[in-house]
Amino acid sequence: MASSWVPDVDPASDFSLANIPFGIISTPDNPAPRVAVAIGSHALDLAALAAHSDILTTLFPDIPALADAVSQPTLNAFAALGRPVHRRVRAGLQDLLSTTGSRAPLLRDDPGLRARALRPLREVAMHLPMAVGDYTDFYAGYHHAHAVGTMFRGPNAALQPNYLHLPVGYHGRASSLVVSGAPVRRPVGQILLPGPEGAGEASRPATGPSRKLDFELELGCFVGRGNEMGRAVPVGEAEECIFGYVLLNDWSARDIQKWEYVPLGPFNGKNFATTVSPWVVLADALEPFRTRPIENPTELQDYLKEGREDSVFDIRLEVDLTTAEGDTTTIARTSSKHLIWSFPQMIAHHTVGGCPLRTGDLLGSGTISGPGGAGERGSLLEMTENGKKEVLLAGMDARTFLKDGDSITLRGFCGPDGARVGFGECRGRIYSAVQR
Amino acid sequence: MASSWVPDVDPASDFSLANIPFGIISTPDNPAPRVAVAIGSHALDLAALAAHSDILTTLFPDIPALADAVSQPTLNAFAALGRPVHRRVRAGLQDLLSTTGSRAPLLRDDPGLRARALRPLREVAMHLPMAVGDYTDFYAGYHHAHAVGTMFRGPNAALQPNYLHLPVGYHGRASSLVVSGAPVRRPVGQILLPGPEGAGEASRPATGPSRKLDFELELGCFVGRGNEMGRAVPVGEAEECIFGYVLLNDWSARDIQKWEYVPLGPFNGKNFATTVSPWVVLADALEPFRTRPIENPTELQDYLKEGREDSVFDIRLEVDLTTAEGDTTTIARTSSKHLIWSFPQMIAHHTVGGCPLRTGDLLGSGTISGPGGAGERGSLLEMTENGKKEVLLAGMDARTFLKDGDSITLRGFCGPDGARVGFGECRGRIYSAVQR
Repeated sequence: MASSWVPDVDPASDFSLANIPFGIISTPDNPAPRVAVAIGSHALDLAALAAHSDILTTLFPDIPALADAVSQPTLNAFAALGRPVHRRVRAGLQDLLSTTGSRAPLLRDDPGLRARALRPLREVAMHLPMAVGDYTDFYAGYHHAHAVGTMFRGPNAALQPNYLHLPVGYHGRASSLVVSGAPVRRPVGQILLPGPEGAGEASRPATGPSRKLDFELELGCFVGRGNEMGRAVPVGEAEECIFGYVLLNDWSARDIQKWEYVPLGPFNGKNFATTVSPWVVLADALEPFRTRPIENPTELQDYLKEGREDSVFDIRLEVDLTTAEGDTTTIARTSSKHLIWSFPQMIAHHTVGGCPLRTGDLLGSGTISGPGGAGERGSLLEMTENGKKEVLLAGMDARTFLKDGDSITLRGFCGPDGARVGFGECRGRIYSAVQR
Repeated sequence: MASSWVPDVDPASDFSLANIPFGIISTPDNPAPRVAVAIGSHALDLAALAAHSDILTTLFPDIPALADAVSQPTLNAFAALGRPVHRRVRAGLQDLLSTTGSRAPLLRDDPGLRARALRPLREVAMHLPMAVGDYTDFYAGYHHAHAVGTMFRGPNAALQPNYLHLPVGYHGRASSLVVSGAPVRRPVGQILLPGPEGAGEASRPATGPSRKLDFELELGCFVGRGNEMGRAVPVGEAEECIFGYVLLNDWSARDIQKWEYVPLGPFNGKNFATTVSPWVVLADALEPFRTRPIENPTELQDYLKEGREDSVFDIRLEVDLTTAEGDTTTIARTSSKHLIWSFPQMIAHHTVGGCPLRTGDLLGSGTISGPGGAGERGSLLEMTENGKKEVLLAGMDARTFLKDGDSITLRGFCGPDGARVGFGECRGRIYSAVQR
């Protein structure tokens, strides 16, 4: 892969020429949210290209909808153009931004346009990349499901009987999706308080701030083209539905969740906030990083049988916890390969009964944990065995669950330095519960 | 209540002058969806009033946003204007449509405008009334929860420990909401097939059309004004968030649901279709029909304590099953009063942790059943004790669950003849599963 002529593309940048992720930016001089791609430490403002040059029509003469799509306040219109268009636009922009690109002079040699369109990332504000109609969270992180199941039901009943037969999932809350950097308010809710010493839990709930606030490390997948109601998406065609990927933190209040979740699943324990990273890594950018998922010993139903074995991605994932005092500790390192169901399988299952997916819908992988110890786990629930052990932090500090003022930052990338395909940060800081 | 000068307002009509429900219509001469109200057997096209007269500005000079709001393809813009505006617009339209209305001549005596704006219901197509961001389904029908719990866990564990402490609910699927009349495709999914005789259920699933397709009789509530993320809605202010009500049929595939629902709740068993009635009955239209909910013996958490006792509505509800042969049987009669949680309590609980509700969000009550026998039950699951008994139909027919070609029609109304406040029909017909 060639390098980019754009200045200051650090070799360790997530946004190399091999990536070209899409996001929604605004700037102090133009508060209208619009489409950009990231390259190194810059955002290339595609709406500015469309408004002030004919570069887009020169590069993509047969995609007339593009100029309008990149001027929208979400990526939905662009995502709806379909994966072949995303592929070509990414390739065209790589050519425009490459030192060896045949079209590079169009932008590189036009200082006025460069000043308008190429903006330092530190000067741009990022917005939620998609208007999300529905958000579905799956539970495909096998080691997470197994660890949590063991904790609550013992090792012999860790996995429910359905777990290896279908990608278990539930409908999440779309209205509380926020972009990286948005504050996260500690939720108030009903919890069972500890009873007198030795008496276990009280038999009655109380209402108060969650005492078991947790993060969940997930990979999120945005739908590009959906399906009509009543028409299932075959697993072999599901890749064509995928627009791209983000990191996702499905913040969870374990005490609220535990009391509320029978028999209909998580509700207030999950719906107060879900944070996504701002740059959508296109599905094609991750193609070189395919690998095999966790082996499933079950004879699958036909509609879940995939034609390929390398159906997941090996993305290096890391979780940082930063205290209010500013001390940062990397508390987990793992890989997105630790899934037992692929996104195409999730899509095939989601639609098998006819449920329509729409452009912009978000699918979460479920919490991703490695098979090893606390340092590979995608949630504090697992790392601390539900609060029984402490996670040690820099600065002589420790945690069972999150404190007010803590920040969690998810990071993820693949590829070698100089050609990294990464997500940037998915970050959120905890603010104290509203007093009432 | 006076009567209307509009012709053919049947005394048994759900759409009396006391009602004035809002919906989204289109007509053969104007396919653009737009806002109307129903009066008797007519729709009054408010967008036509706005375009071809100054009636709206005469009636509502200080609501300049109204003309634009009624020209939208959903009720969201109107709903967002807030309950005081809805109250005044309904009162103003009642005056316009009343035989004794001071403003009645503006429309009654203008034959050209009447012909444009007052359209027979049989000539209009109805659309989904709101753009729904999130759909939440609660479980507040006490007799339903108790009956289903008894069926699956026995009478001593019928209700989960949390049931009387909080309005249990889960996030439903917004993308598969459809308006009355839309076809409902029998879903395909994973089910545990019966094993050899006497052997109970097979230990492995199969994939096929649901054999236990059911309806659920519910009341739906649309949010008018929502809340900011992080700010709970106090139960005493929740009424001001409510725009209006519809009938809701949360179609359910009991066999798919049973296999999939642990531990995260219903998914494909519910997300293939949910039908709502097309006319939104404004919250104020139901005010005269308040009554007390089912008594809850629990000491409630403060945030769920209501200042009023008459927090639910006594709406007569009926369910018709019509076979493919055209025979119709009323299989259930009950009342919407059989709830143990009110919608304000549901809203207070939904937002207590900071979850934002948005204009157009839909809340379902959960299945509503009376305390009596099969004829008061809001689902076939209850009527047939999960398929063990048959429901007898007209035409020498019978059902345990729904057959292809069956239609379910929900109806609901309150008030005396001549002043009924009703919902019209919430209807859906079952079509055979897609063969693969």
